[in-house]
Amino acid sequence: MSTAFTLKFACDDRPGIVSRVTTGLAAIGCNIQEASHFNDQLTGRFFCRLAFTVPAGVTETTVRENVSDGLTQLAATWSVTGDRSRMRVLIMASKLDHCLADLLYRWRIGELPMDVVGVVSNHPREVYQHIDLSDVPFHHLPVTKENKPEQEAKLLAIVDEYEVDLVVLARYMQILSDELSASLAGRCINIHHSFLPGFKGAKPYHQAYERGVKLIGATAHYVTGDLDEGPIIAQDVEPVTHRDTPEQLVRKGRDIERRVLARAVRHHLESRVLLNGRTTVVFPD
Amino acid sequence: MSTAFTLKFACDDRPGIVSRVTTGLAAIGCNIQEASHFNDQLTGRFFCRLAFTVPAGVTETTVRENVSDGLTQLAATWSVTGDRSRMRVLIMASKLDHCLADLLYRWRIGELPMDVVGVVSNHPREVYQHIDLSDVPFHHLPVTKENKPEQEAKLLAIVDEYEVDLVVLARYMQILSDELSASLAGRCINIHHSFLPGFKGAKPYHQAYERGVKLIGATAHYVTGDLDEGPIIAQDVEPVTHRDTPEQLVRKGRDIERRVLARAVRHHLESRVLLNGRTTVVFPD
Amino acid sequence: MSTAFTLKFACDDRPGIVSRVTTGLAAIGCNIQEASHFNDQLTGRFFCRLAFTVPAGVTETTVRENVSDGLTQLAATWSVTGDRSRMRVLIMASKLDHCLADLLYRWRIGELPMDVVGVVSNHPREVYQHIDLSDVPFHHLPVTKENKPEQEAKLLAIVDEYEVDLVVLARYMQILSDELSASLAGRCINIHHSFLPGFKGAKPYHQAYERGVKLIGATAHYVTGDLDEGPIIAQDVEPVTHRDTPEQLVRKGRDIERRVLARAVRHHLESRVLLNGRTTVVFPD
Amino acid sequence: MSTAFTLKFACDDRPGIVSRVTTGLAAIGCNIQEASHFNDQLTGRFFCRLAFTVPAGVTETTVRENVSDGLTQLAATWSVTGDRSRMRVLIMASKLDHCLADLLYRWRIGELPMDVVGVVSNHPREVYQHIDLSDVPFHHLPVTKENKPEQEAKLLAIVDEYEVDLVVLARYMQILSDELSASLAGRCINIHHSFLPGFKGAKPYHQAYERGVKLIGATAHYVTGDLDEGPIIAQDVEPVTHRDTPEQLVRKGRDIERRVLARAVRHHLESRVLLNGRTTVVFPD
Repeated sequence: MSTAFTLKFACDDRPGIVSRVTTGLAAIGCNIQEASHFNDQLTGRFFCRLAFTVPAGVTETTVRENVSDGLTQLAATWSVTGDRSRMRVLIMASKLDHCLADLLYRWRIGELPMDVVGVVSNHPREVYQHIDLSDVPFHHLPVTKENKPEQEAKLLAIVDEYEVDLVVLARYMQILSDELSASLAGRCINIHHSFLPGFKGAKPYHQAYERGVKLIGATAHYVTGDLDEGPIIAQDVEPVTHRDTPEQLVRKGRDIERRVLARAVRHHLESRVLLNGRTTVVFPD
Repeated sequence: MSTAFTLKFACDDRPGIVSRVTTGLAAIGCNIQEASHFNDQLTGRFFCRLAFTVPAGVTETTVRENVSDGLTQLAATWSVTGDRSRMRVLIMASKLDHCLADLLYRWRIGELPMDVVGVVSNHPREVYQHIDLSDVPFHHLPVTKENKPEQEAKLLAIVDEYEVDLVVLARYMQILSDELSASLAGRCINIHHSFLPGFKGAKPYHQAYERGVKLIGATAHYVTGDLDEGPIIAQDVEPVTHRDTPEQLVRKGRDIERRVLARAVRHHLESRVLLNGRTTVVFPD
Repeated sequence: MSTAFTLKFACDDRPGIVSRVTTGLAAIGCNIQEASHFNDQLTGRFFCRLAFTVPAGVTETTVRENVSDGLTQLAATWSVTGDRSRMRVLIMASKLDHCLADLLYRWRIGELPMDVVGVVSNHPREVYQHIDLSDVPFHHLPVTKENKPEQEAKLLAIVDEYEVDLVVLARYMQILSDELSASLAGRCINIHHSFLPGFKGAKPYHQAYERGVKLIGATAHYVTGDLDEGPIIAQDVEPVTHRDTPEQLVRKGRDIERRVLARAVRHHLESRVLLNGRTTVVFPD
Repeated sequence: MSTAFTLKFACDDRPGIVSRVTTGLAAIGCNIQEASHFNDQLTGRFFCRLAFTVPAGVTETTVRENVSDGLTQLAATWSVTGDRSRMRVLIMASKLDHCLADLLYRWRIGELPMDVVGVVSNHPREVYQHIDLSDVPFHHLPVTKENKPEQEAKLLAIVDEYEVDLVVLARYMQILSDELSASLAGRCINIHHSFLPGFKGAKPYHQAYERGVKLIGATAHYVTGDLDEGPIIAQDVEPVTHRDTPEQLVRKGRDIERRVLARAVRHHLESRVLLNGRTTVVFPD
């Protein structure tokens, strides 16, 4: 059986990029299964994702060596991932656990190709008694104004110890410090319970109720130091009416949040998301 | 054949409202075809819309007299409309005419139960040469910083002369003065080309592009002096991707704008919209 | 604190129905919180749902007595439920447990106002090891061609013993016999993994793939003897593309199925669904 | 200013296809603006669309010669189109003209890159008095059981005379004969007013009403001899409720039909649609 790899890269656009890279891959017998390109004509940047199989015996090192020269000449940012290596994911949650429960469910049935290496919460484990956490390390890090720097240091230690590739804030209700946000840049996804840029900050469903909008939504984005301003990965909405109280918006919102977060996580795990300044390129699955 | 009427009212909630009003209607043989209620438990206000047929010979006056006492005792705000009287509508447009063309089309095929009594534009009639305006009075009111008060006075004169019930800003790109907004309160609908409260003001599709949102939308709302802050009547969105340039967002947006505006206008024409503070109650069709 | 009740009824349309019923309710101090009416002009049937609070001391018996005469004269089909009595629900599942896990989650967080009195599966309990079933009686009823009548008899015994109000087929992959379907009429909801009437029967996602549709869906309906033909309660869809293999349709479908089934169950639990021949009236929440 | 071309092709999959074709294009200085690939792993077919600019002086002939050898060796089906050549489109309509009016509007504002070379109807021109047809040849071809072969011959003569690239059945209510369908294979798009495969044939909105579905839809597909069975290009749906009479479904359906048809036509005009057996590959815009 052949192995599959994914190469993603971004560089300044010029003629011949695709030819150069695919010729290198063809030379070692790679067969492209899925190719996605995006030529940003407003910025002149070129984005590409190639998923391909290789013949038996071709290793990840061989693949890297094969494309490295060409991509270096293009001054590209690039990465190669093999489908046998799964990202190591740390999930952070607070009291509301619908996103946590949903991610764990999708992981257990094999929908999300990741290893869940831990769950962090500012609430104790008993809060999640109906969720099966038996085989997942659980870290209780209660946060107060005083101990926040200390707890964030512990969090970073966990990230290091477990070699975490991705931190998912699954309705984690504490705001990360600028320093922590910076050190997790590009590898930390948050779900915000509004259709950004509307209703940033606290209690977005109450804000939506006050304004009388006819749709509510959720937004998954990379975390940056700028609250609720990070590059957006996925968004979705559902219709609401005048009959919906803030409590009903919260209920309807749960369904939107969990599916938007799961979509963003899957796209990240499958190397489908590339940063483009303040925005993202998301190659569809 | 029986005649149909629509009664809508709002009052403070208390036991017995529906009983009182429907008993009055039953007494003169009215048969309720469609009833919608909304009890706003957060404000204590009660909203109701009743569509009903009456036996031959029962006039609008009789209907009014029959419900008047009860509604007065409830200190209700109320109105009765007969299905034989159609609202008189003035449409205002600028260069982009997709909403204008769409409203006129829906009117001509009988989808929107209104009389279009005029079209106002800050551009000359020639701009709309492919739209059939033959039987609709056209008013060219070019607006400059200097003549704005004067042109708004002319507009109000048109509203008076033609006994206009509803002014529709169909991508009319001039901002109404606070005075004009106030004098048209509750009878002027605007379409804003974003999913409010995101991207207020100018060039919302360019703002959406800059922010990298994954859905774009449109919002129909009553005009108030507070720009893009009026009570929302209808909203809708469509997915977009990183491939969409601002120009493509504009193209996709046209489809959203015209259907959202048409929906809001239809709901207003059918007396389905009631104001509830800064928001609306919209009884579905 | 006042108690809340829900009255739903259906009868032939005639003038004065609402007046008669609401006057009866007003007489004992009921305050209507939510009223939904539907006058089916094509069949002449009238459908109504009233949710109301009553003063302290007014019992369910008093409410029933108060509306009984009027509704009997109208030859109405009717029922009254108090918000303190919750429906007793039996969930049936097979190997795929996403709908089961989702219903149990919504129940545990209080989103679905029901008592789960049991889970029935044709697979053993070990299959669901990651789902917390600790406090829910589990019944393993493996079905073969030979033992089907016998197992269905056991199922009916469980329904009787636990006084089950609603049976939910949460991707239960056995077809119920006509007799069982008949005896559960109006109190058994199934989720079919296609947008009916397209792709009835087995392997609907593979059928959808073969046909090349651009949207896939799911349908929740009451079970009747006529397979996949029962009255539809809820449906939803999601876009798919040529890239989606049958396996990916299955994955995308899981999300649609669980939210459509949960919506149908909630609407049933809240007495929002009334049968209208082969179709349903669903009063929105 | 550079010229833009689009190359689309399909062939059996093997390693090196993209490399071979893009190397050929790079050799003459082409710069890929948009590339879409699809590797159908279930059938082993590879589908590709490349949009690219060429340096001044490079002609369509040069482009063709440059890729021809490689594509011939791949036994590919392929075509090249330049953005300066627009498809010549014939629109066919019956009494309901919402799709006709919509396509003409989109054409006039430059949204659809086509030349409308004629309108054919089985109704006389007066039916469309509010649509501006002044500069579009109009052909009245009334169809009866007796004259159908004769009128279809006239239609084919019009297709030949005007060198029609695409025939759009914009709610044209006559069924084309098998012979005509065959001779227009791959260049005739129909809009069917249901979410196929549900509700084929006549009066789909009435069928939808009878069945009590909770969403209605529309389907744009290539015409084949097998009625309503041709490869699907685009579909969409909207929610409906028990309140919607067949007439209201027709009204809501108009909005769906016109946007689905316009989307399919645009995708065809931009060479985004490739046939894949009974289904289509549609590369997104």
